[in-house]
Amino acid sequence: MSRFSLAAMTTVTVLGLGPMGHALAAAFTAAHHPTTVWNRTPGKENGLDATSATTAEDAIAASPLVVVCVRDYRAVRSILDTDALKGRTLVNVTGGSPQQARELAAWAADHGIDYLDGVIVATTDAIGGPDATLFFSGPAEIYHRHRDTLAALGENAHHLGEDPGRAAAFDASLQDMLWTSMSGVIHMFALAKAENIDATDIAGHAKAMLGFFPDMIDFLADQVGSGHYPGDAGTLTSTAATMDHILDAIRTQGLDNGVLSAARAQVQRAIDAGHGSDGFGRLAAL
Amino acid sequence: MSRFSLAAMTTVTVLGLGPMGHALAAAFTAAHHPTTVWNRTPGKENGLDATSATTAEDAIAASPLVVVCVRDYRAVRSILDTDALKGRTLVNVTGGSPQQARELAAWAADHGIDYLDGVIVATTDAIGGPDATLFFSGPAEIYHRHRDTLAALGENAHHLGEDPGRAAAFDASLQDMLWTSMSGVIHMFALAKAENIDATDIAGHAKAMLGFFPDMIDFLADQVGSGHYPGDAGTLTSTAATMDHILDAIRTQGLDNGVLSAARAQVQRAIDAGHGSDGFGRLAAL
Ligand SMILES: NC(=O)c1ccc[n+]([C@@H]2O[C@H](COP(=O)([O-])OP(=O)(O)OC[C@H]3O[C@@H](n4cnc5c(N)ncnc54)[C@H](OP(=O)(O)O)[C@@H]3O)[C@@H](O)[C@H]2O)c1
Ligand SMILES: NC(=O)c1ccc[n+]([C@@H]2O[C@H](COP(=O)([O-])OP(=O)(O)OC[C@H]3O[C@@H](n4cnc5c(N)ncnc54)[C@H](OP(=O)(O)O)[C@@H]3O)[C@@H](O)[C@H]2O)c1
Repeated sequence: MSRFSLAAMTTVTVLGLGPMGHALAAAFTAAHHPTTVWNRTPGKENGLDATSATTAEDAIAASPLVVVCVRDYRAVRSILDTDALKGRTLVNVTGGSPQQARELAAWAADHGIDYLDGVIVATTDAIGGPDATLFFSGPAEIYHRHRDTLAALGENAHHLGEDPGRAAAFDASLQDMLWTSMSGVIHMFALAKAENIDATDIAGHAKAMLGFFPDMIDFLADQVGSGHYPGDAGTLTSTAATMDHILDAIRTQGLDNGVLSAARAQVQRAIDAGHGSDGFGRLAAL
Repeated sequence: MSRFSLAAMTTVTVLGLGPMGHALAAAFTAAHHPTTVWNRTPGKENGLDATSATTAEDAIAASPLVVVCVRDYRAVRSILDTDALKGRTLVNVTGGSPQQARELAAWAADHGIDYLDGVIVATTDAIGGPDATLFFSGPAEIYHRHRDTLAALGENAHHLGEDPGRAAAFDASLQDMLWTSMSGVIHMFALAKAENIDATDIAGHAKAMLGFFPDMIDFLADQVGSGHYPGDAGTLTSTAATMDHILDAIRTQGLDNGVLSAARAQVQRAIDAGHGSDGFGRLAAL
């Protein structure tokens, strides 16, 4: 594959060799990219077939493409040398908010640095493989220029748009769903345990119930996307009654019920605003 | 199939012809069970190839197996005639709490009525088909006596144990997960919308993320079941930091954040109790 051979020649720099930065550098070297690495605390480059730079400035000077992966945006700012970066491409895959990504992109633009923001939706062991999902956002032209090189990090890479905050916005939205759902899963286990139901027994039924989730997501996407919230398949008033039954069962066991109570309160706000006969999708438009 | 032929001869009574009771009666007649129906308000038996009884007492007297499906347990109590039911089997598939099921079972035992509690995890259109899940609990002997007849209601039927509250307890636990997760999904759409992300775009990624849910559920079931909550794959302290990032993104958009804030508060209680280096499963043991 000629594109791969071309990409393979691209030199890359990785700033930050925490667990994730180390995995990124290993993936670049595995894909035969000559790689230069730097970490604030020396000695983290073990096991990497890469060149170690003594300063961040030297590391940046070694490559046209610089990937930074450190703890947070404060650390990113403390590392980056504008003079060294000028005319290069900076890809920041440090976790942060859409707002932080937009601010760093504005800073980069002010200093003549091409900027892409990235989000890694994967654990370190998945990096470089088919299951590693990466979101990028920023100018499409910059993404397409480095796409083949960045593909070394994971096969499931997406450029989500020109707004540099977009990758982080996708990530925040998905993580919102994930952690709220995980709270629901763990509360299911807590209630089941209080009812003397084995975790593995309820887990089997929970996994079966997951089968309905794709349709549920599409159904709600339809309502949210169209701005029409028909209640034919269930109204917010009936949802409130269902939630009250679950909350009764939770309270009977003396369990904490903060999460579902908060969800119930959100439904009540919609009902109080006159939307009781609408469907669940209405909650996205409060 | 000889068991089917035998079962086909069983006479059944259905009390309550709301949308669900009507669907149940239709499924029994479709499976060739001679069926007697009754509803508080007359005239709801249209479209059913069943015998209409004038009183609940007459309807009960017509069959050894009586299925009741009305709005709530209060309605169940107002219908049931102990003299008529004595020596028959009552299967109550009205929605309610584990406690309500246990109380009704105790009442039935006091009056010489065989009692099974049931939960329908299906919409009316799925009744009788392969996707209709039904949970039953109560004496195994009673369930096995009527199992072939009850199979007419849905192919995915489970007897979950002798405790009559167990079907409702499974249901409450699963619904707890479902509605909490749905709150997460709808909040994802709200945040995405605030970030100018199309509902269909984020839905696609959300469905991809669902691919991790079965492993996540098994992982948490392991921790909860074993009572060991190793933090190797992520500690509650790191979960708190992740949730704080998501909450930042939510607050920046001025959105309501009650549900995830409640989940965050639960994590904090675990941290404050000294479990910060434990895994997420610890939350089921607070
Ligand atoms: N690990 C994962 O599974 C995962 C998954 C998705 C995303 N991420 C994201 O990847 C990023 C890195 O995560 P990580 O797992 O590698 O561990 P981390 O603990 O978040 O970050 C460690 C790295 O940050 C550096 N660092 C911290 N403060 C610094 C400062 N003030 N100046 C310079 N460098 C500083 C550390 O350098 P020293 O060695 O000198 O301390 C080290 O290189 C995070 O933003 C995280 O959200 C990680
Ligand atoms: N529909 C579903 O998709 C679904 C799914 C799962 C479980 N369920 C459960 O199935 C049960 C029935 O639901 P449904 O959908 O048929 O509608 P529903 O509105 O919950 O119940 C309507 C039925 O209850 C009767 N009823 C109400 N109050 C009564 C009273 N005081 N005395 C006697 N009968 C009374 C109604 O009789 P009248 O006609 O005289 O008012 C009618 O037969 C509920 O417990 C529900 O939780 C329903």
